[in-house]
Amino acid sequence: MFRELEGAAAGTRVALAPALAALRWNSDGLVPAIAQQHDTGEVLMMAWMNREALDETLRSGRVCYYSRSRRALWRKGETSGQGQRLVSLAIDCDGDTLLLKVDQTGPACHTGRRNCFYNQADGDALVVNAAPLLSPDDLYGKK
Amino acid sequence: MFRELEGAAAGTRVALAPALAALRWNSDGLVPAIAQQHDTGEVLMMAWMNREALDETLRSGRVCYYSRSRRALWRKGETSGQGQRLVSLAIDCDGDTLLLKVDQTGPACHTGRRNCFYNQADGDALVVNAAPLLSPDDLYGKK
Repeated sequence: MFRELEGAAAGTRVALAPALAALRWNSDGLVPAIAQQHDTGEVLMMAWMNREALDETLRSGRVCYYSRSRRALWRKGETSGQGQRLVSLAIDCDGDTLLLKVDQTGPACHTGRRNCFYNQADGDALVVNAAPLLSPDDLYGKK
Repeated sequence: MFRELEGAAAGTRVALAPALAALRWNSDGLVPAIAQQHDTGEVLMMAWMNREALDETLRSGRVCYYSRSRRALWRKGETSGQGQRLVSLAIDCDGDTLLLKVDQTGPACHTGRRNCFYNQADGDALVVNAAPLLSPDDLYGKK
């Protein structure tokens, strides 16, 4: 399926359903999904989807992942209020990774930062390059 | 290690070596690495790194992945000439994903496209949204 599209011209259209069926899920039935803010290009986070999460995301237009720690669907923002509206979804050349362009409400990261990639290498150091915008208490309520 | 940094202020610095040692490699000893063109924000590809690939990337400033199919280090561009210069490297909040900002020479994708995410969902269809810039023959030589 994906191999056949490798040499395809721009604008080539095929049915989506067989492509989703041909995704190369890992041994846990998951594929990685990169979330990118659609207008700024900021990479917000990477999480995982199973088939059910992907189907729900496409159907609802709201991004739903699969939480490996909770072993359950993870409707982004359901607890924190910081959801992701799906703008577009793309599959990579070999059908094992997704790129979601989204419109993120507030912080994408559970730490309260806009994105998860705030630990940046700088020579022999690791530097935190952003402060939380909101505290986890603000996001999830006091424990 | 990463948990301790969750509430840290911007500018907090710690040593890099213990952070690299604390990365959460998967059961195959790999972490996913997202490559993003540093100036345009385009997400180019996602691949995997083992510890050796990560160390080489940081040391050389040229991106080196680990090829799961070839079970070997994959010095991006070594065969195709289309390499990635590392601009910055960041680790996510829970230490299991890398974001590489890179300067990509030519196409990042083995199909000859600039990026790997050219199969885009559009309603019930999948649409190829970019044509190859170069043919695989141009990249890898005629078979």
